[in-house]
Amino acid sequence: MLNIKRALVICAHPDDEVLGLGGTIKKLTNQGTEVNVVMFANGNEGYRTLEEKDRIVEIRRKEREAVQQLLGIRHYETYKYNDFAIPADETTYKICLSAIRTYRPDIVFTHYWREYNTHKHVASVVSDAFWQAGWTCSLDLGEPWKARALYHFEVIDLLSEVSHIVDITDTFEEKMNAMRAYASQCDVVSGALQQIEGRALMRGSQAGLRYAEAFVKNIHRPEIIR
Amino acid sequence: MLNIKRALVICAHPDDEVLGLGGTIKKLTNQGTEVNVVMFANGNEGYRTLEEKDRIVEIRRKEREAVQQLLGIRHYETYKYNDFAIPADETTYKICLSAIRTYRPDIVFTHYWREYNTHKHVASVVSDAFWQAGWTCSLDLGEPWKARALYHFEVIDLLSEVSHIVDITDTFEEKMNAMRAYASQCDVVSGALQQIEGRALMRGSQAGLRYAEAFVKNIHRPEIIR
Amino acid sequence: MLNIKRALVICAHPDDEVLGLGGTIKKLTNQGTEVNVVMFANGNEGYRTLEEKDRIVEIRRKEREAVQQLLGIRHYETYKYNDFAIPADETTYKICLSAIRTYRPDIVFTHYWREYNTHKHVASVVSDAFWQAGWTCSLDLGEPWKARALYHFEVIDLLSEVSHIVDITDTFEEKMNAMRAYASQCDVVSGALQQIEGRALMRGSQAGLRYAEAFVKNIHRPEIIR
Amino acid sequence: MLNIKRALVICAHPDDEVLGLGGTIKKLTNQGTEVNVVMFANGNEGYRTLEEKDRIVEIRRKEREAVQQLLGIRHYETYKYNDFAIPADETTYKICLSAIRTYRPDIVFTHYWREYNTHKHVASVVSDAFWQAGWTCSLDLGEPWKARALYHFEVIDLLSEVSHIVDITDTFEEKMNAMRAYASQCDVVSGALQQIEGRALMRGSQAGLRYAEAFVKNIHRPEIIR
Amino acid sequence: MLNIKRALVICAHPDDEVLGLGGTIKKLTNQGTEVNVVMFANGNEGYRTLEEKDRIVEIRRKEREAVQQLLGIRHYETYKYNDFAIPADETTYKICLSAIRTYRPDIVFTHYWREYNTHKHVASVVSDAFWQAGWTCSLDLGEPWKARALYHFEVIDLLSEVSHIVDITDTFEEKMNAMRAYASQCDVVSGALQQIEGRALMRGSQAGLRYAEAFVKNIHRPEIIR
Amino acid sequence: MLNIKRALVICAHPDDEVLGLGGTIKKLTNQGTEVNVVMFANGNEGYRTLEEKDRIVEIRRKEREAVQQLLGIRHYETYKYNDFAIPADETTYKICLSAIRTYRPDIVFTHYWREYNTHKHVASVVSDAFWQAGWTCSLDLGEPWKARALYHFEVIDLLSEVSHIVDITDTFEEKMNAMRAYASQCDVVSGALQQIEGRALMRGSQAGLRYAEAFVKNIHRPEIIR
Repeated sequence: MLNIKRALVICAHPDDEVLGLGGTIKKLTNQGTEVNVVMFANGNEGYRTLEEKDRIVEIRRKEREAVQQLLGIRHYETYKYNDFAIPADETTYKICLSAIRTYRPDIVFTHYWREYNTHKHVASVVSDAFWQAGWTCSLDLGEPWKARALYHFEVIDLLSEVSHIVDITDTFEEKMNAMRAYASQCDVVSGALQQIEGRALMRGSQAGLRYAEAFVKNIHRPEIIR
Repeated sequence: MLNIKRALVICAHPDDEVLGLGGTIKKLTNQGTEVNVVMFANGNEGYRTLEEKDRIVEIRRKEREAVQQLLGIRHYETYKYNDFAIPADETTYKICLSAIRTYRPDIVFTHYWREYNTHKHVASVVSDAFWQAGWTCSLDLGEPWKARALYHFEVIDLLSEVSHIVDITDTFEEKMNAMRAYASQCDVVSGALQQIEGRALMRGSQAGLRYAEAFVKNIHRPEIIR
Repeated sequence: MLNIKRALVICAHPDDEVLGLGGTIKKLTNQGTEVNVVMFANGNEGYRTLEEKDRIVEIRRKEREAVQQLLGIRHYETYKYNDFAIPADETTYKICLSAIRTYRPDIVFTHYWREYNTHKHVASVVSDAFWQAGWTCSLDLGEPWKARALYHFEVIDLLSEVSHIVDITDTFEEKMNAMRAYASQCDVVSGALQQIEGRALMRGSQAGLRYAEAFVKNIHRPEIIR
Repeated sequence: MLNIKRALVICAHPDDEVLGLGGTIKKLTNQGTEVNVVMFANGNEGYRTLEEKDRIVEIRRKEREAVQQLLGIRHYETYKYNDFAIPADETTYKICLSAIRTYRPDIVFTHYWREYNTHKHVASVVSDAFWQAGWTCSLDLGEPWKARALYHFEVIDLLSEVSHIVDITDTFEEKMNAMRAYASQCDVVSGALQQIEGRALMRGSQAGLRYAEAFVKNIHRPEIIR
Repeated sequence: MLNIKRALVICAHPDDEVLGLGGTIKKLTNQGTEVNVVMFANGNEGYRTLEEKDRIVEIRRKEREAVQQLLGIRHYETYKYNDFAIPADETTYKICLSAIRTYRPDIVFTHYWREYNTHKHVASVVSDAFWQAGWTCSLDLGEPWKARALYHFEVIDLLSEVSHIVDITDTFEEKMNAMRAYASQCDVVSGALQQIEGRALMRGSQAGLRYAEAFVKNIHRPEIIR
Repeated sequence: MLNIKRALVICAHPDDEVLGLGGTIKKLTNQGTEVNVVMFANGNEGYRTLEEKDRIVEIRRKEREAVQQLLGIRHYETYKYNDFAIPADETTYKICLSAIRTYRPDIVFTHYWREYNTHKHVASVVSDAFWQAGWTCSLDLGEPWKARALYHFEVIDLLSEVSHIVDITDTFEEKMNAMRAYASQCDVVSGALQQIEGRALMRGSQAGLRYAEAFVKNIHRPEIIR
């Protein structure tokens, strides 16, 4: 699953990529895989005090840049959607379709389709785009590209089914550090660090590992065995 | 479940609150619980003749005021959405989040998530807002407030699973009167009065009661037992 | 099921009506049933080369006219939505509600509710409109009309449950010809002709027929037996 | 749906046929349709006092005979399974397959597949037998017979989806009388008469009728339209 | 939920009660609630070496007795079913029904209905018995008893939905000790102690607690609010 | 998926292995993979005339031997269950667990869990055994063996979700021949040869292939990525 050249992560908010698959990203970049991230929201709702409101977007932008360094992410392609205002429409769909054709990933990662509305919208447009990016259509968004597989990660809700568990024992500490770099969110997302530790231990124990992250493979477009 | 100080009902159209939980509202207000209602639509499609079209919004506004008296509802916070035009977007989401922080209810009631599109949209934004209202975020919408529970009521479709059945034997007649106050809708919603009676008898018979209303508790945010 | 005077097909893109139920449409028109089609999208994304981009909408319009002749469709009521931009909103909902009241069909056909986003949106507004068209409401969209049944056809994904299988052995060749008339799409929809043949053979074999098309009846509004 | 020569009801316990479709049975026999019932259990657990325990099977046998008269059922093919001991195994499966080939019904009625265990077992073997009875196999159980359709009725739990609602306004009183004939069960099944009334009113109100019974059509073997 | 006099746990194998709700049992007995356990299997398959095979049932019996002391369980009502041979039949059903009427619990706990076969069978007969124990039937199994609620705990698979999270911070260490008392199973259930810790941390982090156990309430018989 | 040393197929009836994955078996044996089959039923219900009844088990045994030659299957481990009498119990479970430990397959194939009862029972015990075979338990059934993956094939019903599509263009003719070798069943399973062709064409067209077979991977035990 991870023996690949390029991976693309498409997520909603600054910190979803860390909570969902920070350990796997670091594992990938450590081995030389190119990892790019498309992120829709600017983080505008995550202020802890009213006086922080006007600065929060800028604060999170800087935090994101630190995370980019920590995890070795190549490009963060970011958009200016408000946190609660990412629709599943033609624009977001084309952003995904275009990104897949631009970055030509072997594997795409995105949100789980049963989470709350904004995450669900992202999961929905990525699922369609993942599949349609390989068709001979919409050519001004780039040459058709068939990524091999699409995986969903867990941020808020546990996956109700898990197809793959990735060992992140070696990169767990860097996942924690990346979350610490999103310092403004450690209070908003209640107990973010404990959540990361508990979940990683629990996912690990399901596979005889110390720390792990869980994924479910999207099977809308089946794998073809020749 | 009903031993509470304040309840908040969030619904789509004028009459949904009566069809769904009119008996429970009256039971609550009788015992001194404060009940507030947020209502999105203006009722513009519910005219019975073309000549009534331009007056229907005003007709339903007056009907709603009568219902407020009958059921003892404190505030009806109403919006001007057209009946078929309530989206699940940032604006409706923030209306819900803000209302929960303003009215600080112990319990929130809303539509069931398997009904038709407009009801589904309301159920969807309320479910997210119920949960996020308790987070340290979006503080200009009010202080974080954790309501204890969210319940879904049934208007068009039967709940496919029911977690609570509330005895409305003592307030059934007032529920019928409230529906009669929505006189313009008794013909549109075919057989509204028979529907109320049949459903109340049926729900009652499931619990050894004369008349009842059914609810399903939302378990997105689990109850915490210390 | 098909012993009817009028049928209405509501679909997203030019070719969905052929892929989904081209054989059934021809079977209906052969026996004298009036068939009308409402189609939302203009086909703007289906170009095979960049130079074709500006002409594709016009190309597909002409192809659609040829299909109209081949299948004997009475009206093609077409809209100018971009291919990936058909929302489930008040406007598309009212288009459906109005069409059902205008064409007064015995049976309505539309997309399956588990397909990708644009098809899902169409399935969603048709399902609501099918049911609400019979109510005494929104009278400036026409007199209430209760169509007898709503069926969903399969275009991209197989139906996960099938309630009716229609023998199209006698009109299978014309279905193939109609697809050939959508010449611009035979390359975009990879292997469209093989897909039609394989699926028709497979659906036929489930019912002891040579070629067939599959449908699932929508049971939101139950059939009433007096 | 009901314009048929012969119907077969397959149920678990004495009174399920009345609770589930007593009104429909009477409606069918009134119009001259032959209705036969296969019933698995002897009713041994339905005693109201310990002293009644040894007599309950005989009591319910006599009650059943009275119901047969009241509803005009031709054959009651009864088995001696204990109430909680009806398995889904080869024997019960063959009883169903054989009954379908013997009575050659146009329509088969049985339990809903989401009820409690014994009802679920019956639903399960009937669903398989309904479909396999038409195959060229197991010929010593009779000549292959393809019944046209299989419907599930509701006894304990509401159907979570309903495809057909049958008007029983004219036979409702006889349904009530048939339940009264199962006098020993009116106390066991708490509030059986209110339950029948409430549910019939509610199902009626969903279709603009006074009293009705609800069914969901099984679509494992699709209807074939030639 | 836990402010009760008596609780009844019904499980399959010796150690399921610890893995599933050991912390909650201890929390209950600490506060004076009477907890009884019904356990079906003898543990015969859990041997780690062939030579241990003949002694494993006896080993696990002794381990269970130690756990009884550690957790303060009043009665362990045990049966001799082989580990892979617990059917959902009349006998197991009556064991559950009888136990509910004998121990008269406020709350019943059992397995989750989506686990593997033997756990699923137990979940299934308990769900039926929980509900039917309150009926006037099968009186030689004891006087009717309506327990207030039925909760499912998680042993092998995570609950796919969680309605209640119980704080076990104060009894976590005793849960670990109880698992250590099932020494023979700590190797069979791979990484049992890490699994307990990881899951407890993760469930805790979902509720702002250190350690927790998760449950889902069964809503087959709705709670009645008078 | 197919780059493996050993595969194990566990199925119910003689011909299920051909209908479900005859082309894949031949593809595997052609490349040198060892394929073994465990088959539960003796085929006793598949007689076409009453006079054939006593001979059908022997007929199908001989047909199976011919298929073994045609497809290059190494062992057919067969049991004497009657066709409609394969339970999901301790015995069938242990047969599966023991077979997995004996043949030590990289991949296990079995029925789909939504088919009719006997197929469902097999799917159920295989799913449990696949997972428990790797545990340190039940050691007299062999040394623990962790197969890499479990796939479900389709015989009667289409898979409602497909994770893998295998190209069988090169072995399609041998699949047809294997079905012809099950000559006694070509009439029982109505239109078996057309069914095979239609489904193979349809599955092929979903992947740009001529002929294919479809599978869904079981994700009860997730794949571990180190």
